[in-house]
Amino acid sequence: MTPRRPSLAVVGATGATGGVMLQILSQHADVWGEVSLIASPRSAGRKLVVRGEETEVLELTEDAFDGVDVALFLVPDDVSARWAPIAASKGAVVVDDSAAFRLDADVPLVVPEINPHAVRMRPRGIVASPNCTTASLIVAVGALHAEFGLRELVISSYQAVSGAGREGVAALREQLSMVAGTELGTKPGDVRRAVGESEDSPFAAPVALNVVPWAGTEAGDGWSSEELAIRDECRKILDLPNLPVAATCVYVPVVATHSMSVHARFENEVEVDRAHEILATAPGVVLFDSPASGDFPTPSDVVGTDPTWVGRVRRALDDPRALELFVCGDNLRKGAALNVAQIAESVAAEFPRA
Amino acid sequence: MTPRRPSLAVVGATGATGGVMLQILSQHADVWGEVSLIASPRSAGRKLVVRGEETEVLELTEDAFDGVDVALFLVPDDVSARWAPIAASKGAVVVDDSAAFRLDADVPLVVPEINPHAVRMRPRGIVASPNCTTASLIVAVGALHAEFGLRELVISSYQAVSGAGREGVAALREQLSMVAGTELGTKPGDVRRAVGESEDSPFAAPVALNVVPWAGTEAGDGWSSEELAIRDECRKILDLPNLPVAATCVYVPVVATHSMSVHARFENEVEVDRAHEILATAPGVVLFDSPASGDFPTPSDVVGTDPTWVGRVRRALDDPRALELFVCGDNLRKGAALNVAQIAESVAAEFPRA
Repeated sequence: MTPRRPSLAVVGATGATGGVMLQILSQHADVWGEVSLIASPRSAGRKLVVRGEETEVLELTEDAFDGVDVALFLVPDDVSARWAPIAASKGAVVVDDSAAFRLDADVPLVVPEINPHAVRMRPRGIVASPNCTTASLIVAVGALHAEFGLRELVISSYQAVSGAGREGVAALREQLSMVAGTELGTKPGDVRRAVGESEDSPFAAPVALNVVPWAGTEAGDGWSSEELAIRDECRKILDLPNLPVAATCVYVPVVATHSMSVHARFENEVEVDRAHEILATAPGVVLFDSPASGDFPTPSDVVGTDPTWVGRVRRALDDPRALELFVCGDNLRKGAALNVAQIAESVAAEFPRA
Repeated sequence: MTPRRPSLAVVGATGATGGVMLQILSQHADVWGEVSLIASPRSAGRKLVVRGEETEVLELTEDAFDGVDVALFLVPDDVSARWAPIAASKGAVVVDDSAAFRLDADVPLVVPEINPHAVRMRPRGIVASPNCTTASLIVAVGALHAEFGLRELVISSYQAVSGAGREGVAALREQLSMVAGTELGTKPGDVRRAVGESEDSPFAAPVALNVVPWAGTEAGDGWSSEELAIRDECRKILDLPNLPVAATCVYVPVVATHSMSVHARFENEVEVDRAHEILATAPGVVLFDSPASGDFPTPSDVVGTDPTWVGRVRRALDDPRALELFVCGDNLRKGAALNVAQIAESVAAEFPRA
């Protein structure tokens, strides 16, 4: 009997994250048996290339999960909420990139570098992958936590417009074309007037020549959903249910790769040299920290790469237990498709190989 | 005898901050008697309009300060360090926008909304105006400090490229023209290759479609000079010499107006309603905080205005003594020319008027 490689379904194959997932599947071509691509009725019938083969996109139906061992969900929250339990009921292990199940006590929230063990405890047959900011952040912060004992996080994000989907990228590209070659950006509202209010932008303010301190939906008491997601998810992944976390999420005119300025306070005193050693050897982390040589991570260098890049490591001058970090991670890779693929591969390893 | 209005000299009249100063002088035309414009030999002889009159720019010499009551210095640190004491020795009160004297114990560092009294204690005849980030920030934070008692600041900046001078703006404009209409920003280094390494940019990385977590020069232990300036200047202006301050300074592709994400911890418990009341009535502050209506400050709306705009006011969920704020201020106005003009006007008020 030939060993059977598990079969895989990619739900949401035609979206932005789906596109990155198809690249990753082609790079890790030996993990999976049959790969089926699934999307909404609107996109069904399209043909996409995965592992070098043209593959027709199937419509999202219950039957589409027949014989599927692992199903990746790269779709909006409401689609996951409805369809992930159906896929699980048909025997597939679901790895879900949406927010629908992240805080469900019966669904593990997994970043394989940090809490790989959690993937096996999945009473609903569903494993969740975190928000794009959390996924990149936690790889660095989790490694430091293991050594120093995390006690508080204050985070300000510099989020790429692709975090708001393809509409976010389209809005930035369109607005950049409107402001390039002009003298805009020096008078109140001049950028807003130039880019218009009526276009199909997911942002509440211009995103070219601007920053927008709002991401997600209202979550009460002035907080945005994205800010609370970082807090809730960091607590769950690190198993620190009372960790104080204060996040401010801000969109910046960057296509892809989220950056974060991190103030992390620990139980124990920290040393930059030791933090450097930890980050230099932590899985999924690149330490890039020599400002004198111009070495600090920026989105334009990090985009398209897998790891979380960390630089600007300093000990707080007034608190020997606090570190400042600047962290960059590609929100479409580690922040989405890559982490989902890593979780799925750890599930694949459970399947018998002989 | 006619009351004499004090005479004014503007040193650095031909620079970016000088240009904004000439606008402000024209708006506040009744404060000053004779206004002379002074610049380096390279720019001397040019004619600029101030208060509606063409005025020839004089060369920076000792004689240029003859009969000058108040001299505004809007020049690089080294020029101020050399020439401000000369102007003071000739009897002018110097208001200096450079970093040369900000931390000098014999030079007050003044933001008139916060520490107006300090302007009169100037043993060297020099008054300093703070860094552009500090000036906008402190107007909001100082008002809250007066009520709640500030105990700690964690700040991440979103700084406009004009903070790096006209070269910064030119670099952003040029780079935007290179990336607009392209698909750049999705592959490692694609923006860096497109905008080139050799151009005359003051930034160590591309600033279009990117963020650059470095501002100023190396200041030891991984900190940048701009980050330490915020710490030192907040401490001095608030007269809190031991205040813990951790700042991370990051350039973003915005022409003018610095933004800051602020985590402020106080001695006493804070209430958002009371913070709103304080900020709504604080001099030099505009409260703009209703995210449900899209009301939060962004650089594109704040640029060209005088006040510090504050929004996104939340109480930290895990610390009843901490507030999160998002603060925007035009770095060329309150962050530079406006604060200098305000200091100068408070000096002008000392002159007898009858």
